[in-house]
Amino acid sequence: MQKDIVYDLVVHNGTVLTINAGFDILDRGLVCIADGTLKRVEKGTDNDPLPSARRVIDARDGIIMPGLVNTHTHAAMSLFRGLADDLPLTSWLNDYIFKAEARWLNPESVYNGTLLSCAEMLLSGTTTFCDGYFFEDAVAEAVQEAGMRAILAQGIIDFPAPGVPDPKKNVAEAARFIEGWSGKSPLITPGLFCHSPYTCSQETLKEARKVADRAGSLFQIHVAETQKELQEIEQRHGVSPIQYLDRIGVLNEKTLLVHAIWVNESDIACMARRRVGVSVATESEMKLASGVAPIPEFLRNGITVGLGTDSSASNNNLDMFQEMDTSAKLHKVKRLDPTVTDARQVLTLATRTGAEAIGLGEQIGSLEVGKKADLIIIDTHKPHLTPLYDHVSHMVYAASGSDVSDVIIDGRLVVQDKALLTLNLETIAKSVTDLARKIAA
Amino acid sequence: MQKDIVYDLVVHNGTVLTINAGFDILDRGLVCIADGTLKRVEKGTDNDPLPSARRVIDARDGIIMPGLVNTHTHAAMSLFRGLADDLPLTSWLNDYIFKAEARWLNPESVYNGTLLSCAEMLLSGTTTFCDGYFFEDAVAEAVQEAGMRAILAQGIIDFPAPGVPDPKKNVAEAARFIEGWSGKSPLITPGLFCHSPYTCSQETLKEARKVADRAGSLFQIHVAETQKELQEIEQRHGVSPIQYLDRIGVLNEKTLLVHAIWVNESDIACMARRRVGVSVATESEMKLASGVAPIPEFLRNGITVGLGTDSSASNNNLDMFQEMDTSAKLHKVKRLDPTVTDARQVLTLATRTGAEAIGLGEQIGSLEVGKKADLIIIDTHKPHLTPLYDHVSHMVYAASGSDVSDVIIDGRLVVQDKALLTLNLETIAKSVTDLARKIAA
Repeated sequence: MQKDIVYDLVVHNGTVLTINAGFDILDRGLVCIADGTLKRVEKGTDNDPLPSARRVIDARDGIIMPGLVNTHTHAAMSLFRGLADDLPLTSWLNDYIFKAEARWLNPESVYNGTLLSCAEMLLSGTTTFCDGYFFEDAVAEAVQEAGMRAILAQGIIDFPAPGVPDPKKNVAEAARFIEGWSGKSPLITPGLFCHSPYTCSQETLKEARKVADRAGSLFQIHVAETQKELQEIEQRHGVSPIQYLDRIGVLNEKTLLVHAIWVNESDIACMARRRVGVSVATESEMKLASGVAPIPEFLRNGITVGLGTDSSASNNNLDMFQEMDTSAKLHKVKRLDPTVTDARQVLTLATRTGAEAIGLGEQIGSLEVGKKADLIIIDTHKPHLTPLYDHVSHMVYAASGSDVSDVIIDGRLVVQDKALLTLNLETIAKSVTDLARKIAA
Repeated sequence: MQKDIVYDLVVHNGTVLTINAGFDILDRGLVCIADGTLKRVEKGTDNDPLPSARRVIDARDGIIMPGLVNTHTHAAMSLFRGLADDLPLTSWLNDYIFKAEARWLNPESVYNGTLLSCAEMLLSGTTTFCDGYFFEDAVAEAVQEAGMRAILAQGIIDFPAPGVPDPKKNVAEAARFIEGWSGKSPLITPGLFCHSPYTCSQETLKEARKVADRAGSLFQIHVAETQKELQEIEQRHGVSPIQYLDRIGVLNEKTLLVHAIWVNESDIACMARRRVGVSVATESEMKLASGVAPIPEFLRNGITVGLGTDSSASNNNLDMFQEMDTSAKLHKVKRLDPTVTDARQVLTLATRTGAEAIGLGEQIGSLEVGKKADLIIIDTHKPHLTPLYDHVSHMVYAASGSDVSDVIIDGRLVVQDKALLTLNLETIAKSVTDLARKIAA
């Protein structure tokens, strides 16, 4: 019966890493897509003819897997990639990043910076990302043009911010963004992002939580990022940052805690109890010397964890393959235990549980019938991916973003044979480079 | 006068990172090569015509810099890439690696595995590597074919080893290798590699040192790699591994200590006094959970440090760009100080001081007139390298091996526009894949 169905797209001749709960790996796999949805995900046989389809993609003996989910970034900050490095955090932020943002951010620059990041993410196999920034409408326009899936959040901070000169209006502005983008695009889910417990008042946090709850949106916040923040919050509120957020009632299952580095056992228990999601941005947290988030403890306590790159101003790229590699290795050396954060676990963080952490677990994160067709193909015909004993090991420890050959989002081919189909790279590079010249001057 | 000279090769239209002592960066740089040697390295002007040359390479506004120096690997172990991961060190070694080596290593497999690693290293911008393994003659044959520069060392261990069934002959075998390859090839410098202070007896170490000194060769040894080794050596000899090696007289300026993780202040002082070089293999040391070598202390004490990938069985690739990135970030997060191991310092480790650490500092490691013409071109027309405020930052924090477009070794173009000119990738992949099938079975 299935043979009569005409699929929009069939991907074949690769090993399928489903990243489903059983972690099934399908030799000579077959993925059939219609209406943006996965209709068949199965092991092929040499004898079966291919199902009829409008388009067939030959994975050429490569790897077919879910698109990577970047659970934390500020896409437009690619504008500031490499502007300042190796500095104390306060100097980096106050002397460079905040100044550049105040002077140079506007809808156009945010739009162009986001296009640049979308191009980078698509070419390196990320199909979904979770963003928080200012002028988020411009971010959404760029993401639509790129054809990516995203959770986009307007930033909330109790200072005059780009596009929101009056902090009293910051939550209202976020509410307006959510309303404007709700149901507008199938790939964009709006939300809000409170900057941190030390830059948002209790009132702001509570009000933002209400707005998010009313809309059923994700509430994101940077929290427990630095030792300084921990001390500050303890001094001000008598409890840890996590306990403080819990006490004022903003933690629930539609919450993404970003960083969560300086947490103790009670904090972790609280996070598990409130069923929050966590985003760990290993490479950026290393570069800024923030600390090491206890991923193994989070997982042992049943907390849903995703990986993120943070922005390219502090990473300095958006390659989720490198993020997996470094994340896996960092926890091993920190504990002097090579068995923690193994390859399967880390690949799961970058796909299925990452999707769950940002509230998209029902739709994406694994290749299973009924889920959205967000998938990537990895070209394994490379010296650094030869020989091939273990596909999962290669994805975490040997591959990099440049090994991605094809990217499909919502059933649509957006990268083909390493060429980006949705955006014009030259135009984007020119506009960003022109702006960067002014910023540098 | 210089205009009359005909160069073999001229590279122009890129920013030259010289990595000389003054860290000069030359806009619109010009590099002129004759007889395998750098004849001119200078800033160009738009008005000057190009010097006459047999071949001209346009760097297309990219980055021109010294080829990367991988100071520690076992190239042939690419045969075992991804064979076993995430295991306790003893199980990984005893149940997988040693068994596979004993069964599958022979001159042919070592030759093919080395070719594979040379292909990977060349395509990712490494022009020189420092190797230690067994059947090192086969390694040397492969390196010659690849057209790479290398320090190659026959391994010495007091157990029956691949190709050296009788441990009593291990030093003699290494001496034979040195003699055989001395002066044979301009790109290959032979040396020897004692496996470790716990697998080589005092007599073996002293004898090997004598052989190395007589030949003026580099004496390499893995040392202070794990906490277990530290305890074992302290128990057996009453001092630390470094102090033990010093006491038996094997440390001098022609020594490369690999790893040197579990070292104390006296060890570091001793290393500085003996003027040894150190190779740190950050990513592999993280993956095997060995520990973190104190690079900032080494540098503060004037010790010459290089970076290495270790083998792709424990990394699992040979990408020195990723190695730089991770090395820079690891020390920041370990000390909670974002200013340590900055981009310039780390790029220097991967080039100039890496070359010094393996005894090639006079010949390579920077782009300076009189040095050998080992250089690479990086294509910066990529989303993840846009915009470009700081070339050095991009090389350490944003680039990866796949951004390398051209590679020149000893004045010879070996990679052109990402295509490997010296080796046949398909043939190599086929032979390694065929062997891997047997190993996996």
